[in-house]
Amino acid sequence: MKPLLNLNADLGESFGAWRMGADEAMLDVVNSANVACGFHAGDPLVMRRTVAAAAARGVSIGAHPSFPDLLGFGRRRMDIPAAELEAMLIYQIGALDAMARAEGTRVTHVKPHGALNNMACEDPAMAATVARAVKALDPSLVLLAPVLSCLVTAGREAGLPVVEEVFADRAYADDGTLAPRSQKGAVLHGAQTCVAHVMAIVRSGALHTVGGRTLPVRVQSICVHGDNADAVATAQAVRQALGEAGHALGPLTAMAAG
Amino acid sequence: MKPLLNLNADLGESFGAWRMGADEAMLDVVNSANVACGFHAGDPLVMRRTVAAAAARGVSIGAHPSFPDLLGFGRRRMDIPAAELEAMLIYQIGALDAMARAEGTRVTHVKPHGALNNMACEDPAMAATVARAVKALDPSLVLLAPVLSCLVTAGREAGLPVVEEVFADRAYADDGTLAPRSQKGAVLHGAQTCVAHVMAIVRSGALHTVGGRTLPVRVQSICVHGDNADAVATAQAVRQALGEAGHALGPLTAMAAG
Amino acid sequence: MKPLLNLNADLGESFGAWRMGADEAMLDVVNSANVACGFHAGDPLVMRRTVAAAAARGVSIGAHPSFPDLLGFGRRRMDIPAAELEAMLIYQIGALDAMARAEGTRVTHVKPHGALNNMACEDPAMAATVARAVKALDPSLVLLAPVLSCLVTAGREAGLPVVEEVFADRAYADDGTLAPRSQKGAVLHGAQTCVAHVMAIVRSGALHTVGGRTLPVRVQSICVHGDNADAVATAQAVRQALGEAGHALGPLTAMAAG
Amino acid sequence: MKPLLNLNADLGESFGAWRMGADEAMLDVVNSANVACGFHAGDPLVMRRTVAAAAARGVSIGAHPSFPDLLGFGRRRMDIPAAELEAMLIYQIGALDAMARAEGTRVTHVKPHGALNNMACEDPAMAATVARAVKALDPSLVLLAPVLSCLVTAGREAGLPVVEEVFADRAYADDGTLAPRSQKGAVLHGAQTCVAHVMAIVRSGALHTVGGRTLPVRVQSICVHGDNADAVATAQAVRQALGEAGHALGPLTAMAAG
Repeated sequence: MKPLLNLNADLGESFGAWRMGADEAMLDVVNSANVACGFHAGDPLVMRRTVAAAAARGVSIGAHPSFPDLLGFGRRRMDIPAAELEAMLIYQIGALDAMARAEGTRVTHVKPHGALNNMACEDPAMAATVARAVKALDPSLVLLAPVLSCLVTAGREAGLPVVEEVFADRAYADDGTLAPRSQKGAVLHGAQTCVAHVMAIVRSGALHTVGGRTLPVRVQSICVHGDNADAVATAQAVRQALGEAGHALGPLTAMAAG
Repeated sequence: MKPLLNLNADLGESFGAWRMGADEAMLDVVNSANVACGFHAGDPLVMRRTVAAAAARGVSIGAHPSFPDLLGFGRRRMDIPAAELEAMLIYQIGALDAMARAEGTRVTHVKPHGALNNMACEDPAMAATVARAVKALDPSLVLLAPVLSCLVTAGREAGLPVVEEVFADRAYADDGTLAPRSQKGAVLHGAQTCVAHVMAIVRSGALHTVGGRTLPVRVQSICVHGDNADAVATAQAVRQALGEAGHALGPLTAMAAG
Repeated sequence: MKPLLNLNADLGESFGAWRMGADEAMLDVVNSANVACGFHAGDPLVMRRTVAAAAARGVSIGAHPSFPDLLGFGRRRMDIPAAELEAMLIYQIGALDAMARAEGTRVTHVKPHGALNNMACEDPAMAATVARAVKALDPSLVLLAPVLSCLVTAGREAGLPVVEEVFADRAYADDGTLAPRSQKGAVLHGAQTCVAHVMAIVRSGALHTVGGRTLPVRVQSICVHGDNADAVATAQAVRQALGEAGHALGPLTAMAAG
Repeated sequence: MKPLLNLNADLGESFGAWRMGADEAMLDVVNSANVACGFHAGDPLVMRRTVAAAAARGVSIGAHPSFPDLLGFGRRRMDIPAAELEAMLIYQIGALDAMARAEGTRVTHVKPHGALNNMACEDPAMAATVARAVKALDPSLVLLAPVLSCLVTAGREAGLPVVEEVFADRAYADDGTLAPRSQKGAVLHGAQTCVAHVMAIVRSGALHTVGGRTLPVRVQSICVHGDNADAVATAQAVRQALGEAGHALGPLTAMAAG
């Protein structure tokens, strides 16, 4: 029998009068939602509605905390002392967990956003800070982290349940990091291209890098994006392809236990 | 035997590089701390340190949520739709509760701040929104509310445990609201003046208003301020006077149960 | 010869990663742009690009200052002391004027946004604060204000050049204020409905209110909206109808001088 | 005759309910004030009052723009695209200039704050962005920059008037940068230590580094701090020592012209 897999997406990234993302449509496709917590996107009402919409579909809820950078959408690298970053993470995860509790459910995983995630993937000290924050709040929370990253290592060392993810629409550099967006071909377009990319990784259990290397990985979750109608179609196509290949899709908590 | 009483204070109102309040000194005096949650004051690190300092002294921790108004310190009236305000309150209480959980404790009460508190004391609809937010998150949380206010009524109607408070340094108008700060004599100065004010209320079980009226109240908690050295001395004097009058001081949870 | 008229629109209301409005299309239609200044929408880069796009088309540039309320898009009533509000207005107008200077032009008018505008239309004291701020910065700036409002009066009393506007897509209550959005029929839909509304006002020199009253006004500028493709079509239709009726369209500075 | 010198200080760093700095006392000592513009400190009302207090004493007014980082007081390194940073700088300088205009004066210099200043001193590309922003707004604005920094070079290359400054209370590393605060002896304490440090630099026309090197510099302005009573006394002592050594003190515009 094929291993259980998981589809996750970043959601709840509207703010005030500004809309972003096809959240409702994506919630019909994915198993787990990474919900913005107000620091890069998401206001309290958006958070509550996103949590309610996820809960109504049985989609598990994760916190998607960020650097405090609304204007830069959390994509700017910032130099924040570890104790302060740790407190910022606890703050955001706790705020989202309260929304979940108010809607009769709970936050069950954490996935850092944007520049915070990128830095934590490369920097063992920042990765350890992320893991420490999650553990201080609740050591049963799943840490959702990119394959081959420092964040996987730090999460395991902290004793957290860790689930490893790949991106459906991103090419990988030879060191296993995401090819930078500025590089041609770094972002994959079109449902069939993404399906082929995902299925190649899943079938072989390895990343096939832009430089032609093969890097063995343990794929457990696939991150799909939902910024536009095209993205939703891609997510649906990935879901269908995984199903046709015999993979059941399920919650992150089941992944982590495995 | 005299009824148990409680001393509470607003704390954790520093922000980033800016300091405010003699928090450590006040935590040695009070039983319960109302901790700012980031919307009018308090950043995640200040929140965590305040919670840790309170927990170390056995001071119970309450959320002190506000309108989103850092620049106005939460003292500006704002017109926020009920669903959005409810979500803002859940957000803030949850963020602080996460800090408490990370420090091995929990938030056990809620007291709205500034203009939000003033409006919720006067406006039954806003009071109901506050009560609904608290109840949605955790119906065992104590609502700390001014005597004779709409907030007391709304909390009771929602089935929340409610504790009623008076202010040690504020005169009361004939309708039981606080005399406006702009009015001469509205803010009491000096430890002995405040002690006399508090003891008169506690002994008689009534407010003695600026217009000479006597309004029976059920005093359970006394709010003291700690913005400066003088304020700390006043808080200490109130504590000592209550003790000499035979009142034990204890946590809000015990008040609410009574 | 028919009097010169002016078309104005609120623009530059994107923020960071979030887009709003069909700014480029609207700049091809209107004579004057009211540009958000960062307090309810618009970040520095959005402001600079909007100013550059307006300048490239000869569209005159106005500041569209707001209460400090990004989350509420400046639509929430707030209680801000006059001296502080005055400083906030100078701050915003000055920031936008600097963008204009960097692009080789200047801000030539001011139109308050959202709840600030609504409050300043009803409250003579707040209207006077707005006028005082504009005058303190530059008494040659045109104040663009709704017909029959306190803001018109306050601007005139301060000696500012004032231009009076009507809204192309809003019905008017019997007292000359905008019918509240919650009321059926308050917001007009469809290009032809809006054209008929505008032309009725322009031809008769009077508002025709929801209650059937006729209120004489001096129409100088018409505010059109540009949030979506429909709105752009409406703006174009209004522009065409005014032209066919023999009205030239021109800058606010020419209106004010008249 | 001894060359004219200038004393400058960072001021206006209060925010809302939070106070910082002995601004009034410092304005009696310095020739030029670098005024916070709202991104790391300073709100519109604080800005206006600071500008008015400076103008009343004939102290010249400079903008002290920052990264958008109120919580980190602008001391955190951030990775902001050049076009966006340029717009942020124009925004802040323009907002302060508007306050100055409302008080009958103008901004005459610019000095970046905190991490922005540190990065612009080391990174030629960021220094060029700062110079480009200043020049786009007004090429007659003086750029106040640390001796031996990239910012001096970038300002000169852009054709801006540049004034070079040293810090009264900071030791210098062998490459001419400030010794990091984490290093023992990096921050000088006590009025006499600071006076000796400044006078050694001024007399010799050179920095004497922590490693014993001598780096010739062109000192034109000395930055003093005013965070506390001690700092004010130090600033006064530096001013007195410069006067006794025969140096006249004057505005930055005179420095730049020289």
